[in-house]
Amino acid sequence: MKLELDKQSNKPLVEQLVESLMGWIGRNGGGGGSRLPSIRRLAAEHGISRNVVIEAYERLVAHGLVRSRPGSGFYVAAPTALAKGNPASSQLEDFTNDMWSLFQADEGHLKLGCGWLPNHWREGDDLTYAIRQVARQSRSGIFDYSTPLGPPDLRGLVQERVRLLGIGADANQILMTGGGSHSLDLLVRFLLEPGDVVFVESPGYYNLIGLLRLQRIQVIGVPRLANGPDIESMDALLIQHKPKLLFLNSVFHNPTGSTLSPAIAHRILQLAEAYDFQIVEDDIYADFQQEPSTRLAALDGLDRVIYLSSFSKSLSSSLRVGFIIAKQSLLKPLVDIKMLTSISASRFAEQVVTTMLQNGSYRKLTERLRIKLSEQMAAAITMLKRAGWEVFVEPAGGMFVWARHPAADSSAQLVQQARRMGITLSPGQLFLPEGGDSPWVRLNVAYMSDPRAKRFISEPSGTLA
Amino acid sequence: MKLELDKQSNKPLVEQLVESLMGWIGRNGGGGGSRLPSIRRLAAEHGISRNVVIEAYERLVAHGLVRSRPGSGFYVAAPTALAKGNPASSQLEDFTNDMWSLFQADEGHLKLGCGWLPNHWREGDDLTYAIRQVARQSRSGIFDYSTPLGPPDLRGLVQERVRLLGIGADANQILMTGGGSHSLDLLVRFLLEPGDVVFVESPGYYNLIGLLRLQRIQVIGVPRLANGPDIESMDALLIQHKPKLLFLNSVFHNPTGSTLSPAIAHRILQLAEAYDFQIVEDDIYADFQQEPSTRLAALDGLDRVIYLSSFSKSLSSSLRVGFIIAKQSLLKPLVDIKMLTSISASRFAEQVVTTMLQNGSYRKLTERLRIKLSEQMAAAITMLKRAGWEVFVEPAGGMFVWARHPAADSSAQLVQQARRMGITLSPGQLFLPEGGDSPWVRLNVAYMSDPRAKRFISEPSGTLA
Repeated sequence: MKLELDKQSNKPLVEQLVESLMGWIGRNGGGGGSRLPSIRRLAAEHGISRNVVIEAYERLVAHGLVRSRPGSGFYVAAPTALAKGNPASSQLEDFTNDMWSLFQADEGHLKLGCGWLPNHWREGDDLTYAIRQVARQSRSGIFDYSTPLGPPDLRGLVQERVRLLGIGADANQILMTGGGSHSLDLLVRFLLEPGDVVFVESPGYYNLIGLLRLQRIQVIGVPRLANGPDIESMDALLIQHKPKLLFLNSVFHNPTGSTLSPAIAHRILQLAEAYDFQIVEDDIYADFQQEPSTRLAALDGLDRVIYLSSFSKSLSSSLRVGFIIAKQSLLKPLVDIKMLTSISASRFAEQVVTTMLQNGSYRKLTERLRIKLSEQMAAAITMLKRAGWEVFVEPAGGMFVWARHPAADSSAQLVQQARRMGITLSPGQLFLPEGGDSPWVRLNVAYMSDPRAKRFISEPSGTLA
Repeated sequence: MKLELDKQSNKPLVEQLVESLMGWIGRNGGGGGSRLPSIRRLAAEHGISRNVVIEAYERLVAHGLVRSRPGSGFYVAAPTALAKGNPASSQLEDFTNDMWSLFQADEGHLKLGCGWLPNHWREGDDLTYAIRQVARQSRSGIFDYSTPLGPPDLRGLVQERVRLLGIGADANQILMTGGGSHSLDLLVRFLLEPGDVVFVESPGYYNLIGLLRLQRIQVIGVPRLANGPDIESMDALLIQHKPKLLFLNSVFHNPTGSTLSPAIAHRILQLAEAYDFQIVEDDIYADFQQEPSTRLAALDGLDRVIYLSSFSKSLSSSLRVGFIIAKQSLLKPLVDIKMLTSISASRFAEQVVTTMLQNGSYRKLTERLRIKLSEQMAAAITMLKRAGWEVFVEPAGGMFVWARHPAADSSAQLVQQARRMGITLSPGQLFLPEGGDSPWVRLNVAYMSDPRAKRFISEPSGTLA
């Protein structure tokens, strides 16, 4: 087998190899069963590292194109194997493929479109200190299951934090979870039945859209504007649909970076009252905000609003610690589902977060992050405008800016061009619950001081034209 | 309010207080809305610690009997609030109430019926060392999301371990999860639809039964005998039902402690072939076994069998690390569901486990545990028999022995008597998918050298009669 690989290209070798192999399978492996070269041989033939071949084969296996037979090697999967699998899964791939590509992207790739901070932004000292302290001082922390709601001292500290946002909750109304996605999953499983209608924002968080599809929920998109969801559209949609829930980001919305205004917040609650639906306020970017703005949960007193947030974006994505705050009557069933599906969250991770909240290092960390992010945001907006990009809204902080370039009718062109420059971006349509094309892309400003980002931002049109 | 509390009793004060308060609510709070005394006042009036009162109120809140109003205090919940909540949830409480009581049991209580090792059995040094090493050496480990399948080096190490059990799997067939319950949840969500029929063992793992109920799966119990499921019963049930899946524990079955024989394993696979169902082999007690016995996944080559295990029982329940091994075609959809519902598992926890597998400390730890458990098991069986208990089967190791006392027709009597002696036990019927009464209780031998356990085992009949 001779494959075309360009070692000078910005495109990672793994990706080149995956594409070449896909082409080869298409040309030669139609019937399935053909044996691929051994890892050792393919690496030697092309003068590349075995790790690159392993990674490429793993991706093909993950996509169902190739099967590995232990002790024997890699084979092209039979077409029946490709076509099988439950139908739900193939629909979900639209959402998960992007995560696969982000998670598996070459370390050398710039993840300009991703939803987390770059590793070099993270500050290790305080976290390492807290980890060592829990490891040294708490046998229970390193060994035992956590309690059903999560440790009382941690819930007390969360209670104090959200009070600064105007959210008055009792510690008993706080449920610790394994992060924002886990919180959403628990809520969806408890509050919704297959076939139920929910409203999400469009554009909106694609993992949530995928989760709702997985649970066979009908997802209706409400346009997101600069100050929150479009109230007029929502009003019109409420005449046609009867949603059980509305999901939204109040602060530094994913993907547009916009923040809910008090007036829109008030109108949403009026509509929720009039049309009798509940609201899930996903506030996982809360700790990036300098001056607290309006929270639905604060206005409504946790009556119709269920609030969630996490420490994954600010402190660590590795630890998996988040929380849900809701009215008392929802807590017990949510905990029941949490216990049946995972027994408990990680007591160790919870105690590490507790330590950092107690000793003040988490507060200081987020203060530094806020300043850094808002500086980076201002610089990014200047850079984008100077290069002729249109910015959907100018966020005051957070990670995301939602932008389009006049030379690109579809974000797919931008994604492709970025890939050629060693940059991973997600196409805008991924964020649209209704599907369809989009010229917009989500950019993570924490990655924009990288020279590759600067080059891409300043002249995407050159290559696009 | 004057409540009866007996500080000399073996029964924890928290439990006494909860019961007294329930009685008070029943007598005085019928209509709801009555205010309970403040924490400070109730503590002072009865000369008990405020923590005891806080804990008691939290439990009442969790059970929906009491509501807390931030800044105002605790009130008896209105009857409507008690009756509300989705119907699924109240069915699930049979399963989760036991977990609540175990997790929230007074630290002074002996958890003789629980499903994990006592904290003083755990060995902290190697784990603390591994935690500190990851914290010191891996920025990625403390900050980043994990990869979709989990770290390749960890999957390679798991692959080596299961090879010792005769299970030949490629590292690509291994999916890291957040523990055994998380693995079961992913499998149930991917493989089953509401209304589907599955077979579980009777008695069997109650959290699994609850999980299946949550997903509205029809659960049929197959009697568990000394060598595995009762094949004759299964054969008869297969004429009436068409299960999609059979769930079982091959080794040190929960709750009976019995282990699958090669002949029964072979017969199960024949039935699976004849009646076309898949098998989930839940092997979370694998690392307690001295000499590997037959695994279904080894016999069947992961064709109809999906294998799962975890590090929660042996190493740490706090870290939440487990894995699924399955045929290639199942992996991608399982990962998709994992990503949509939790993004990723904890990279930190995964790296800690990787470190301990790599440096050999996990192997040595489990070797010591196996010896200790099998000694403890032998002593427990002798103790039980001497005191006139009937033992369902005499396990060679593991944590569980399933036992009954001739003087108790129902395990409820044993549970009650144990509680009086400061011991937490779970009633046998909890383990029966079909419900009904049971004279059997699950005893965890790791707790049986405690003097309270010895006293309870040696003379339960005295008080029962």
